Amino acid sequence: MTDPSIPAIVRIELGERSYPIVIGSRLLTDASVLDAHIRARDVLVVTNETIAPLYLSQLTQALGARRVGSVVLRDGEQYKTLDNLALILDALVEGRFNRDAAVLALGGGVVGDMAGFAAACYQRGIDYVQLPTTLLAQVDSSVGGKTGVNHPKGKNLIGAFHQPKAVIADIDTLATLPEREFRAGLAEVAKYGLIYDAEFLEWLERNAGALNAREPDAIVHAVQRSCEIKAAVVGADEREQGLRAILNLGHTFGHAIETATGYGEWLHGEAVAAGTVMAADMSARLGWLTVADVERTVELLRRFELPVKAPRIGVDRAYELMGMDKKVLKGQIRLVLLRKLGRADVVSDYPRQALLDTLQAHFS
Amino acid sequence: MTDPSIPAIVRIELGERSYPIVIGSRLLTDASVLDAHIRARDVLVVTNETIAPLYLSQLTQALGARRVGSVVLRDGEQYKTLDNLALILDALVEGRFNRDAAVLALGGGVVGDMAGFAAACYQRGIDYVQLPTTLLAQVDSSVGGKTGVNHPKGKNLIGAFHQPKAVIADIDTLATLPEREFRAGLAEVAKYGLIYDAEFLEWLERNAGALNAREPDAIVHAVQRSCEIKAAVVGADEREQGLRAILNLGHTFGHAIETATGYGEWLHGEAVAAGTVMAADMSARLGWLTVADVERTVELLRRFELPVKAPRIGVDRAYELMGMDKKVLKGQIRLVLLRKLGRADVVSDYPRQALLDTLQAHFS
Repeated sequence: MTDPSIPAIVRIELGERSYPIVIGSRLLTDASVLDAHIRARDVLVVTNETIAPLYLSQLTQALGARRVGSVVLRDGEQYKTLDNLALILDALVEGRFNRDAAVLALGGGVVGDMAGFAAACYQRGIDYVQLPTTLLAQVDSSVGGKTGVNHPKGKNLIGAFHQPKAVIADIDTLATLPEREFRAGLAEVAKYGLIYDAEFLEWLERNAGALNAREPDAIVHAVQRSCEIKAAVVGADEREQGLRAILNLGHTFGHAIETATGYGEWLHGEAVAAGTVMAADMSARLGWLTVADVERTVELLRRFELPVKAPRIGVDRAYELMGMDKKVLKGQIRLVLLRKLGRADVVSDYPRQALLDTLQAHFS
Repeated sequence: MTDPSIPAIVRIELGERSYPIVIGSRLLTDASVLDAHIRARDVLVVTNETIAPLYLSQLTQALGARRVGSVVLRDGEQYKTLDNLALILDALVEGRFNRDAAVLALGGGVVGDMAGFAAACYQRGIDYVQLPTTLLAQVDSSVGGKTGVNHPKGKNLIGAFHQPKAVIADIDTLATLPEREFRAGLAEVAKYGLIYDAEFLEWLERNAGALNAREPDAIVHAVQRSCEIKAAVVGADEREQGLRAILNLGHTFGHAIETATGYGEWLHGEAVAAGTVMAADMSARLGWLTVADVERTVELLRRFELPVKAPRIGVDRAYELMGMDKKVLKGQIRLVLLRKLGRADVVSDYPRQALLDTLQAHFS
């Protein structure tokens, strides 16, 4: 078992853009950890109104002699806009930050996406370091280099690929995370086991109680293994051409749920959980999973107290919403399904009836 | 001498991001050229109110069966803003352009920078093709991958490196270019000879009359050789770490002129021309150029009817403005000077007095 007093490190190998993910306790206040991974003398901390009162002053103190600016954004996906991006860029310009400066993203996925995109755009690219404070950000945004903002007509339509110089995931910040958000993060953790690693899936089944109790050693291992799996998947496919799509297990169904219910009603991870159950069900309809496999999937998500039943949005509406999805390739809806537990595939040549039956079973 | 009926091609070697620059006559209406270099079936043409009436409909026609959307921006550097970038992104979103679509930049440097940046950001990066309609854009923006917008507090502070899939430089578009803008472009052409290629410099001296008369074969050669030189310089230094800075010959002095006189008063190329004379003069003060070399430099720029005398902005003001320049490294003003005609160097260890004498001689 992991010793949380020594940070775990996952190294993301991307040639000259390689970087470490440091996972452990008391990292945000550890000057030696910060010094090791933040070389810039001038930093702009981007955070939000929820996180700032909790961690901004202690982080600023631990940053020592650096010049530290800060931008405090409103909290919420609805503020992930080009207008708010401009606020970060204004702070960089008005603080006369130069190309050697770094942006620090202190917060969840929204903060990370916006801060990373601002760093990508400012003077055509400066460094940034992620300090993720949600489980979802620690296991998802830490790897992949995706940054960006939403457009009124679609999520993440505007952005850039920009790799951080380091990710420092202080698991102590999860102590202040609301229960629903924590559980939404666990949906993504479960996903990594389901798509890639049957052994990790079993570990999750054995340690669901410890994770629910937010035990540090269990959390560190779950974050570490999740990042390793995402890195393995993304590593072969940095610019999202093919394999990387398996990370979207449950996301196409989940996207329909999120959109139909209005963004914000269901948390992303909650929608993914219900969507994952649908993907497992459809995989069973194709003869890839057994009924017992589907039950294991449902049971794990249930132990994480995640929704496993989609809302009744109707088959037609769901189908239409899925057709709008970015993951549509040339008119054919590509889906991520499970060949077996621990192995996902992106498929578009399934019998259409299997999809319709699945939508019927869950959405009507 | 180049035959303008067969386009010249400069291939920019950047591994998997390599692309051709096609230079010639009647390219914008040549469906076979467009088809060869624009693979997308859906394209969004970004242009401005000056260029649209001249070339948009004929280009659209030559694009054949493609779905063609367009965005017509206001004309001018003052519209190179994040707000106007949003207009392009809105058009991409609202036209439901997908990741296989391409942005076509039909216009000068401002259009190219904004269209390229929009392409860089949309869905984290889609293709774009440049169709530069000014001499400056053909010899400068065609190579280097710089895209972006201005911030109220500084030029090009927000942007990305994003390489086009192709540049199609139709020199016929230069026929409609105002005289001052054409000559400003020649300042950059002269720069390439001065910094890198004494033989090209001599060719320019011999062909100044043909260039002034906008003779197609001379223009094609000048654009081709300029792009080749820029490619050679940028090729070794894609992300602007060192060597690439020699492309800024005359720019630091020129920047002071542009800022002191208010942007728009002097065209960029005009300021660069006067700045180049200052750089040559300072190079002579350091014993690198002869007086005859400086006179040749002045004479060539004069034949292009470019300003060779800086405005009297005052030494103190100039010094302050140069200190604000992005090209300052750790408090020391780096300057691009000429070791000899055809070879530039970036230097920061010159005697300060030589700089002060140069400022005194030109700015007071």
